[in-house]
Amino acid sequence: MAHDAAVSPFAPKAIPEVPVIDGVRFAACEAGIKYRNRKDLMIAVMDEGTTAAGVLTQSKTCSAPVLWCRDSLKSGKARVLVVNSGNSNAFTGKKGRDAVALTAEFAMKAVGCAKDEVYLASTGVIGEPLEAGKFAHLLDGLAKAAKPDAWADTARAIMTTDTFPKLVTRTATIGGVPVTINGFCKGAGMIAPDMATMLCFIFTDAAIAAPALQSLLAAGAQTSFNCMTVDGDTSTSDTMLMFATGKAAARGQKPVTSAGDPALADFTAKAHDLMRELAQLVAKDGEGLSKFVTIEIAGAESDKAARTIGLSIANSPLVKTAIAGEDPNWGRVVMAVGKAGEAADRDKLAIWFGPHLVAKDGERAPSYSEETVAAYMKNGELTIKVDLGLGAGKSTIWTCDLTHGYISVNADYRS
Amino acid sequence: MAHDAAVSPFAPKAIPEVPVIDGVRFAACEAGIKYRNRKDLMIAVMDEGTTAAGVLTQSKTCSAPVLWCRDSLKSGKARVLVVNSGNSNAFTGKKGRDAVALTAEFAMKAVGCAKDEVYLASTGVIGEPLEAGKFAHLLDGLAKAAKPDAWADTARAIMTTDTFPKLVTRTATIGGVPVTINGFCKGAGMIAPDMATMLCFIFTDAAIAAPALQSLLAAGAQTSFNCMTVDGDTSTSDTMLMFATGKAAARGQKPVTSAGDPALADFTAKAHDLMRELAQLVAKDGEGLSKFVTIEIAGAESDKAARTIGLSIANSPLVKTAIAGEDPNWGRVVMAVGKAGEAADRDKLAIWFGPHLVAKDGERAPSYSEETVAAYMKNGELTIKVDLGLGAGKSTIWTCDLTHGYISVNADYRS
Repeated sequence: MAHDAAVSPFAPKAIPEVPVIDGVRFAACEAGIKYRNRKDLMIAVMDEGTTAAGVLTQSKTCSAPVLWCRDSLKSGKARVLVVNSGNSNAFTGKKGRDAVALTAEFAMKAVGCAKDEVYLASTGVIGEPLEAGKFAHLLDGLAKAAKPDAWADTARAIMTTDTFPKLVTRTATIGGVPVTINGFCKGAGMIAPDMATMLCFIFTDAAIAAPALQSLLAAGAQTSFNCMTVDGDTSTSDTMLMFATGKAAARGQKPVTSAGDPALADFTAKAHDLMRELAQLVAKDGEGLSKFVTIEIAGAESDKAARTIGLSIANSPLVKTAIAGEDPNWGRVVMAVGKAGEAADRDKLAIWFGPHLVAKDGERAPSYSEETVAAYMKNGELTIKVDLGLGAGKSTIWTCDLTHGYISVNADYRS
Repeated sequence: MAHDAAVSPFAPKAIPEVPVIDGVRFAACEAGIKYRNRKDLMIAVMDEGTTAAGVLTQSKTCSAPVLWCRDSLKSGKARVLVVNSGNSNAFTGKKGRDAVALTAEFAMKAVGCAKDEVYLASTGVIGEPLEAGKFAHLLDGLAKAAKPDAWADTARAIMTTDTFPKLVTRTATIGGVPVTINGFCKGAGMIAPDMATMLCFIFTDAAIAAPALQSLLAAGAQTSFNCMTVDGDTSTSDTMLMFATGKAAARGQKPVTSAGDPALADFTAKAHDLMRELAQLVAKDGEGLSKFVTIEIAGAESDKAARTIGLSIANSPLVKTAIAGEDPNWGRVVMAVGKAGEAADRDKLAIWFGPHLVAKDGERAPSYSEETVAAYMKNGELTIKVDLGLGAGKSTIWTCDLTHGYISVNADYRS
């Protein structure tokens, strides 16, 4: 599938320059797996001592690379990451397992590491055998060519229907020592919590033990990628991995061994912030979108209930099409609250479109002006807030509208 | 909103002639509630002795008429049903309750009955106050003009974005005495189980006590309207009511007092069959559809699990857009099975598109021919079958594809 679609109106103006991270190097190339004239294979080579953490799809039909990563994560160590786009190697049976084994074998040889230090991810069409024999031999050359500053090329190589690469950086301090966190991700459709057709890779030079890294990554997923939805469709390949090279130890950072260590507080906050920005970039690249929408839920019985209600609104085709039509049809928000299955009292609900109160006390707000709210709907970035008036539960969900563009992208993805 | 959309390609060639049912008369008129130049208000006047049953939306933000019906159903009796289209009187607060009370008052006077023998339903936009004062005075004239054969006009008066009226008839015998069952319904979007923006009214001349009628209606909902989805959006107004005038008793039908009475078996089967046909007609009128799709699930752990998996497939935007694009993208069916949250084993799954086995044993079927299955996808009516290979649970779900037409209909519904 060619990248015919125009770039999302919410794409950053330019892909950011990010600092290098000591202990990791990247390379990407055109392996011709499916796409033509673009890079579709990437490698990240990490120094010895790198720790690893991961959050993987909950799908019961997950891909072969997801199963591979689940095994490798048991070691808590990483030396090499290989990612291809164009084919997800999902539902490919024994051929899929063979493709993973072959790719891993070449990756191990390329960097000289153990089997459980190899991480693999694939994204693209489901059910087509991935012919690893056609590209695995490239990994040796890629590993040799890997450079610490090849972030942009690498972020581009994992794209499928994405219209822009998604690369974000943060700095944090651990015990007074500055460390860097860079992350990149892909995803534009088949996007829903737990998780999304979403690949995300985060690197840091901080020295953090694998269990502590795992703990902060899992917590971050809950307030970032699991709060973002394009179409409610969860992928077989969702993979978020985080790698810590530990090189900051040489600059005096005392290695962190426990997630509860107060020294990790700033790092955790910055890493979670980076994850939120990456998640928002995915929603901002939703297939065919014309609006980026933030759904804020307050007053629910619990945070979990708030998230369920927020996702019910964010995934409702009727809410999403109303937004596409710039129609302040808040009745559909009422509908989506009502169908979520969580506690809601019609007569305690309040709904705002941006700063405009549109409904409260079980009916349209007396101050409601169709003209004013319709004018608000012309904005590219919209916020819909719902207060359930029941408790202290809250959540924030990011999504986009449902347009003719989504249909066009998805009705002929394989052709 | 004008009925610009062409009639669904799956509409019956003509609205069927249905027999009259002794004890019930209908009338409809143009009340100008929202639509112009079409009937939007209907009445059904029933003789004394009519029993009533109902299944209503589970929405936490249900409409004022739904609350009214819930109360009336406690009596088990009915004398009058009033339905309007163009405004759902949902999320209209005290004004909504007042509108319901005013409509009911005029209906009671028109037919001379008690408050709890009145049933009301409204369908259309949410959140706009329904000005009952503008049409309630018409009910007296409508009741006087009501005729036993005005089925087609009545079925048309409850339509919103429907492109054709949905009217179905069956005959059954109870203890050897023939009885008639007629039903009509509306619904085309905001359609999902439990239930749908769906109004359905079923009438029979059989003599059946209200508790038995309720029991067979609730059971029928599970295998008809709760197995049908257009967009996964559940409405605030879903209402299915069934009325039994009891007039067949005069022709020798022994009144049925228990749902377990063997004499009710044929009637139950025919009534459920009628409900299934009505539910399929709704899916066949899904907003903007180009394909009518039957999803058959077998081999699940339970019937409930099978239904959840079937709905996960039927509601997946990616499956629905692939079908719209006539793309045999069975990988998206794998994805939808995987995300359903029910037990599934990738390596035991088998998937058929029509008669064509496309996947089994965790990978593409060896016999799979893209050309053959792509040709199958050109059909208007499609069947996707999934066997999970785990147990005996099964279900059948009816749905439609997701097209540019759905976006067009819903992005400017209110304008």
